[in-house]
Amino acid sequence: MTELTSKVDKEARKRAAGILMKSFLKLVEDIKNGEPPVMEIPKRTLSNTIYDEKRGLLILGNDKLKRNFLDLNEAKRFMQTVLMASIIYDALINDEYPTIRDLYYRGKHSIILRDPRGKVYEENTWDEQKESDSVIMDIEVFTSLLREDMLILSKEKGKVVGDMRIRSGNDIIDLSKMGHGAYAIEPTPDLIDFVDVNAEFVLVVEKDAVFQQLHRAGFWKQYKAILVTSAGQPDRATRRFVRRLNEELKLPVYILTDADPYGWYIYSVFRIGSISLSYESERLATPNAKFLGVSMTDIFGDKSKKAYLSEQERRNYIIKAKEADVKRALEIKNYEWFKTKGWQHEIDIFLEKKSKLEIEAMASKGLKFLAFQYIPEKIKNQDFIS
Amino acid sequence: MTELTSKVDKEARKRAAGILMKSFLKLVEDIKNGEPPVMEIPKRTLSNTIYDEKRGLLILGNDKLKRNFLDLNEAKRFMQTVLMASIIYDALINDEYPTIRDLYYRGKHSIILRDPRGKVYEENTWDEQKESDSVIMDIEVFTSLLREDMLILSKEKGKVVGDMRIRSGNDIIDLSKMGHGAYAIEPTPDLIDFVDVNAEFVLVVEKDAVFQQLHRAGFWKQYKAILVTSAGQPDRATRRFVRRLNEELKLPVYILTDADPYGWYIYSVFRIGSISLSYESERLATPNAKFLGVSMTDIFGDKSKKAYLSEQERRNYIIKAKEADVKRALEIKNYEWFKTKGWQHEIDIFLEKKSKLEIEAMASKGLKFLAFQYIPEKIKNQDFIS
Repeated sequence: MTELTSKVDKEARKRAAGILMKSFLKLVEDIKNGEPPVMEIPKRTLSNTIYDEKRGLLILGNDKLKRNFLDLNEAKRFMQTVLMASIIYDALINDEYPTIRDLYYRGKHSIILRDPRGKVYEENTWDEQKESDSVIMDIEVFTSLLREDMLILSKEKGKVVGDMRIRSGNDIIDLSKMGHGAYAIEPTPDLIDFVDVNAEFVLVVEKDAVFQQLHRAGFWKQYKAILVTSAGQPDRATRRFVRRLNEELKLPVYILTDADPYGWYIYSVFRIGSISLSYESERLATPNAKFLGVSMTDIFGDKSKKAYLSEQERRNYIIKAKEADVKRALEIKNYEWFKTKGWQHEIDIFLEKKSKLEIEAMASKGLKFLAFQYIPEKIKNQDFIS
Repeated sequence: MTELTSKVDKEARKRAAGILMKSFLKLVEDIKNGEPPVMEIPKRTLSNTIYDEKRGLLILGNDKLKRNFLDLNEAKRFMQTVLMASIIYDALINDEYPTIRDLYYRGKHSIILRDPRGKVYEENTWDEQKESDSVIMDIEVFTSLLREDMLILSKEKGKVVGDMRIRSGNDIIDLSKMGHGAYAIEPTPDLIDFVDVNAEFVLVVEKDAVFQQLHRAGFWKQYKAILVTSAGQPDRATRRFVRRLNEELKLPVYILTDADPYGWYIYSVFRIGSISLSYESERLATPNAKFLGVSMTDIFGDKSKKAYLSEQERRNYIIKAKEADVKRALEIKNYEWFKTKGWQHEIDIFLEKKSKLEIEAMASKGLKFLAFQYIPEKIKNQDFIS
C-alpha cells in the first residue's frame, strides 16, 4: 500500500511504535532480572481526577496503581494490557488503521488451559468492548500516547470552514473553498499542519443545522471567523482541533449552544474536558473557550442588559424545562469550574424561570438577526459567561 | 449580503419562489371568482403508497385530498398550509436559509379572535413540530418542490472522497485532495455540478469509522472508487447525492453495511426510499443500488461459495441476534422489494442462524483483508444480493 497512504502517517507510526515498544520493554527487563513484571499506571479514578484551577483543566493526580503479573487478582488485567499493546503495535508496523471496535474483535478469543491433572480451563480475553476500551485507556496513560497518536481511527462528526489553509496527508486544503459543503475534520487532528490563516476568532456551533445556516449566509466571510460545528456532543478530534486553533494560532474561541444544561455541558466538555476521561484534557480541552450564548440574560435581560427577545417572542419560543434539566442544572451548579459569579447567576436564572431556548428560535427571528446582529454584538460587547 | 451568498443560491431561490407563487395563486383566482378556495394535494397515506416494480421505487398513487377553506374540519389545516407557504416564500425572497425547526418557530403563535358577542377565542397556529413538518410535506407534494429546492437547510452527515471535481456555490472542489479528512456534502445536493470524474463505481459505507479506515488505507485510489458514508441511517442529501452519481454519471452503486436487519434497512432506504416519505423517492432513491455485503453467505458460506470467516473467527465475531432483530427480519421479508430469490435466501439464513455481524469484524481480520480482498473480490464476482 506504499503510495496509497500518506508520508505523515508513516512518520506518526514510526514514532508511536517506538514509544510503545520502549514503554513495554521495561517488562522484559524485569523478567531478565528475575523480577516479577510490574506496570505502574496512573489511576483513572474519580478520586484521582483534579480540577487544576490555575490551568483551568481537569487533570489526573499523582496516584498510580501497580499491575503485577504474579498477583492473581491482577494477572488477567496484566495479560489484557500486554495483549492489547501487542495488537496495537502490530497494527502500527503493518500499516493498519484500527478502530477501538476492531481492536476489541482482534483480541477477542478464548484461552484454553489444561492443568497437570488434565482438567481443562477456558478463559476469554475479554467479553465486552468496555473491557478492551478500558485497557486502551490504560495504555494511553501508561505511554502518554493518545489513541490518535497510535493511528487508531474513529467516526468523526466535526466540520470546519473559514479563511485558512491546512496541510493534511499529502494535500493542502483551502477551507475557504468548500462551496456550500464543509471540510470534515480527520480523526487524527494532530497530524494537520496549519499553513496560513486569515481569521480573528473561532465560532463553535453545537448544531450542524445552524452551522449550515451561518455558513451559507456568509457569516465567516463577513466577520473573519473560523466556523466549526461539533454536531452535538463534541468528539475527541473536534476538541483537539479547536484547542490547536486556540493554542497555536492564538484565536479566541466562542461557543454557541442551546440555552439549557445540555448546552452548558457541551461548552464544559470543550473547555474543561470530560470528568470520566480527564487524562485527555491536557491535550483536548480549551481552557480559554468562552460561552457566547444563548444565555438566560439574552432571553430575559437583566438590570444591565436589554433582552434579545420580546415578551411575545418569549411566549412563542421558550420551552419549559423538564425535571431532568433542573436536576442536571443543580449538578452543574456544583462543579468547581461553574463556581464563578457569571455561571452561578446564569444557573440561578434558569432555576428560577425553569425555561430553556433553542438556537433555532434565534434563527427564526431571521437569519440576519442571528448572523449579523446577535452573534457579532455579543462578541463586540464581550458578553460572555465565564 | 450580496457577495456573501452564492449565485447558484440566488437562481434557485428565484425558481422556487416562482413555482411557489404560481401554485398558490390559484387560491386567489378561486376567491376572485367567488368560489371557495380549495387545494388539491396528493395523499401521503400508506394506502396511497405504491411500489412501482418496473422502476423499483416507492411512489405516491393518484389519490388526492381536497382542502377546502370553507369546510370547518379543514379550515385549520388550510390556514396552516397557507401560513407555512407564506413563511417559506418570505424566506426565499429575503435570502434566508431556514431549517424545518426554524419554520416551526417562525409560524408558532396564538391567534386571538373575538366573536360579535365579545367572547374571546384563542387558537395556536401549531403546538408541535410534527404539525408544521407535516404541512411542509404537504407543500412539497402540492408544488412538486422538495424542501431543498426551497433552500430549507438541515443537518447533514454524509461525506465523500474520490477522484472527481465538483462545483458547489462559487467554488470548484477537488474531492481527491481532502487529505485525511473528507468533503461534507451540502444539504442541497441538487445545486452541485459534477465537473469531471475518474471513477468506476461508488462504494457507500454505512459506518463513518469504516469510511475513515478505507479512505486512509487508500482504497478509493487503488480501485477508482467514489467513497461515500451515510454515517448511519442516510439523510436526504446523501441519498440524493448518491442517486445523482448513479443516474447522471452512470456509476454503479454498491452498499456496505453490517450483516443485520438494520443494515438491510439502510440499503433499502438508499434503494427504494422510506415508506412514510415515498413522495421523495422519485428523486432520492437509487433503484440500481446493489447490496455488496456483509451477507450471511459471506459469514457462513453455502453450496456455491466458501465463507470468508473460519469456524474460529465466527465463534469470536458473531453476535447473537436479538428478539427485535428477528421481528424486524420477518417484517422485511414481507416487503415487496425484498421478495427476490436472493433476499429471501439471505433472510432465511439469518432466521435460521439467528446471527449478525458488524463490518468491523471484517476489518479486524486486517484492513488489507477488508479493503484489498473482501470488497474488490465481491465486486469482481458480482457477488451482490438483489
